Amino acid sequence: MASARLNALSTSRVRPRVVVIGGGFAGINAAMSLADLPVDVTLVDRKNYHTFQPLLYQVALAVLSPADIAQPIRSILRDHPNIEVLMDEAVGFDLDQRHVRLKTGAVLIYDYVIVATGSTHSYFGHDDWAKLAPGLKTVEDATEIRRRVLLAFELAERHMLERGTHPPLNFVIVGGGPTGVELAGAISDIARLYMRNNFRHINTRQAKVIILEGSPHILGMYPNDLQLKACKQLEALGVELRTCAHVSDIQPGYVMVGEERIDAIVTLWAAGVQASPLGKILGFETDKKGCVLVDAHLNPNGHPEIFICGDLAHVEQNGKQLPGVAQPAMQMGTYAARRIGMLVGRAAGSEGHAQKPFHYFDKGDMATIGRKAAVAKIEWPFKAHWSGFMAWLAWLMVHIFFLIGFRNRLSVFRQWAWTYLTLQDGARLITGSQDLPGWKEEN
Amino acid sequence: MASARLNALSTSRVRPRVVVIGGGFAGINAAMSLADLPVDVTLVDRKNYHTFQPLLYQVALAVLSPADIAQPIRSILRDHPNIEVLMDEAVGFDLDQRHVRLKTGAVLIYDYVIVATGSTHSYFGHDDWAKLAPGLKTVEDATEIRRRVLLAFELAERHMLERGTHPPLNFVIVGGGPTGVELAGAISDIARLYMRNNFRHINTRQAKVIILEGSPHILGMYPNDLQLKACKQLEALGVELRTCAHVSDIQPGYVMVGEERIDAIVTLWAAGVQASPLGKILGFETDKKGCVLVDAHLNPNGHPEIFICGDLAHVEQNGKQLPGVAQPAMQMGTYAARRIGMLVGRAAGSEGHAQKPFHYFDKGDMATIGRKAAVAKIEWPFKAHWSGFMAWLAWLMVHIFFLIGFRNRLSVFRQWAWTYLTLQDGARLITGSQDLPGWKEEN
Repeated sequence: MASARLNALSTSRVRPRVVVIGGGFAGINAAMSLADLPVDVTLVDRKNYHTFQPLLYQVALAVLSPADIAQPIRSILRDHPNIEVLMDEAVGFDLDQRHVRLKTGAVLIYDYVIVATGSTHSYFGHDDWAKLAPGLKTVEDATEIRRRVLLAFELAERHMLERGTHPPLNFVIVGGGPTGVELAGAISDIARLYMRNNFRHINTRQAKVIILEGSPHILGMYPNDLQLKACKQLEALGVELRTCAHVSDIQPGYVMVGEERIDAIVTLWAAGVQASPLGKILGFETDKKGCVLVDAHLNPNGHPEIFICGDLAHVEQNGKQLPGVAQPAMQMGTYAARRIGMLVGRAAGSEGHAQKPFHYFDKGDMATIGRKAAVAKIEWPFKAHWSGFMAWLAWLMVHIFFLIGFRNRLSVFRQWAWTYLTLQDGARLITGSQDLPGWKEEN
Repeated sequence: MASARLNALSTSRVRPRVVVIGGGFAGINAAMSLADLPVDVTLVDRKNYHTFQPLLYQVALAVLSPADIAQPIRSILRDHPNIEVLMDEAVGFDLDQRHVRLKTGAVLIYDYVIVATGSTHSYFGHDDWAKLAPGLKTVEDATEIRRRVLLAFELAERHMLERGTHPPLNFVIVGGGPTGVELAGAISDIARLYMRNNFRHINTRQAKVIILEGSPHILGMYPNDLQLKACKQLEALGVELRTCAHVSDIQPGYVMVGEERIDAIVTLWAAGVQASPLGKILGFETDKKGCVLVDAHLNPNGHPEIFICGDLAHVEQNGKQLPGVAQPAMQMGTYAARRIGMLVGRAAGSEGHAQKPFHYFDKGDMATIGRKAAVAKIEWPFKAHWSGFMAWLAWLMVHIFFLIGFRNRLSVFRQWAWTYLTLQDGARLITGSQDLPGWKEEN
């Protein structure tokens, strides 16, 4: 019945229908670029908000609040009458009929569809690790990480008061990519700076952050000189860095690296990602992470009406796969929208552009390391490798500039200034359960 | 073992030990007032933060973020070296030995104890209603209410798109006290103002807020003229007010008032409160809500070393029980601390004061009704009954002034100004589950 109703609704329309699945960087940018075209757009996301993922770790480490880095998709798009937003989840496709099936049972008909559902954690087959070592992809993940990190200090204080001893304050981060490094720097900041005078019985400076990286280098996507700088900056923060360290098991309270047991009051996962299951559901060829192989126009094999964007797409450039970060996703979203504009034959001026294959214009990458250092590989407007305070300033400005919504920019800027000047962070709330896995009290 | 250890710790101390149970208004004010006295203080709370409850409804209705109105107890008290904070829960007492038993199994020894664990919802024996009609006492409650209210609009939009019809957007609030009235005004604001242009298929202005009050009057603690003003202001917002309406049943999707069924896409509970169970556990006489009867010094029968403060205390003045709001709680906390100061014989100057029985100095009460009206019964510095915009301005200033923490004051002020001027609220995130009780999709 739902489907019949939708058919009825749809056939009364004359403009091409574009369904955008996913409200991340790719989906939002696609929708924004479709706003002025003669098409009707439905954006579907299972969340009601867009998350600015590059700052999620600051929510996890209690500097920012979720509302600072997330914005309701409806308010982002509310001034574009040709775009409607549906809070639902795509679960299947009928590629011949051009239908998207939604979780609630309804069906959306499309002339063009942009699939941009991103990626999620991969525990390399050890799904039981997920509960013991949360990753950082969503606002809920960030709140959970915050809860665990803060609870660890509370637990140690309580044990110290009651027993005169406490478990080692080891925060183990599996994975030395940008997320792992940013989490490490931020936890180190919390322990060394923001918690000062907060506890009477424990010394929070004794907390130890350990990064376990499987490959020989942290920050694999960065050039060697910046990797080296990052190592030094992490060292200065007291972060212990172990490379070629393969995690063989994760248990409540500890992590195994080969035969060695490393105590861990909190374990965090920043190691593997895999594409959203929608990639496989579509039925096209995927790589081993589940990313859909696409042609030069971001279309999967033989389907010019389907665009795969963002982390879900496997796009190679100069022989290397584009990384699953914000910039490529945004550019793919915009490209797909422009190409649809060309295909519906109305986007005067942009035709030449969209005829060209997708090309990722790389402006660079950056990752922070604590509260006043970062590494930045700058590609545009000039080429440079920066590290330390300059890189951190650049990171600051870029991230405030790209935050969606003026209110968020204002709020984050104020929050950062406050935190930086006063060494007090503002969002150090433990919500939800008060149990830490592996540390149920049993005296 | 934990207890033995604590004994060892405790006997090495020479200063009197004060245990404060609860980090609400009473507990925090007690601790602050004990900061400069020659005592060692342990504040115990199961949360790591103090909640500014008068603004919780603004978190529930997505104007403010939890971190705007909550502050870690440790940071509030971090500059007072004689105060330690323990994140734990009191579960029992040994009044002869002067022990507090904690949930984790440890035991705290006290010379004086201040019990201020507040109150919780009472569903009048219908505990099964709790899941269907959440109340508003904690940050988690506020997030849950926000989730439900926002999901209701999403659900209606989806139904409208898919079926061409949607369940009535009825928000039913059980209870017409200050919380009920503030929730009603805020939901009405969201539907009429903040959601504009956000939806393509539903008209959010068709949302209807219904207050069901069991007694003949809303805002029972206010004088008649203000009750009348409040009625008019609520009417202007389109809120339907039903007095003498006794809820006989709450089910997913509807509420029964006697034999009448009222559709409710969301039901909220603002009706009854009961004292924290710790009141009963103490073993002294309690009133029917579980509040502990205390003497003029806030001590329960024959125990000058025990103080009951805040919502947990049954205190009468001029023949009326003091209401369970912030002001009396704060004053009780301060009184208990001063009296302890006198009893330990060092609080020069304040002795005369603390010898006197506790007297609540009533500065008045106020409740907002939407974004530019309120009612205020002012008792100090002059007596007046205000309503409308003036009362709302007064409410604004008082609440910013009393927020704990400069950062919060700044943040809330900025947030309010933004929301007021732009009609955009900033924290409209749906986190957690995406199910609304009674509205599982089943096409």
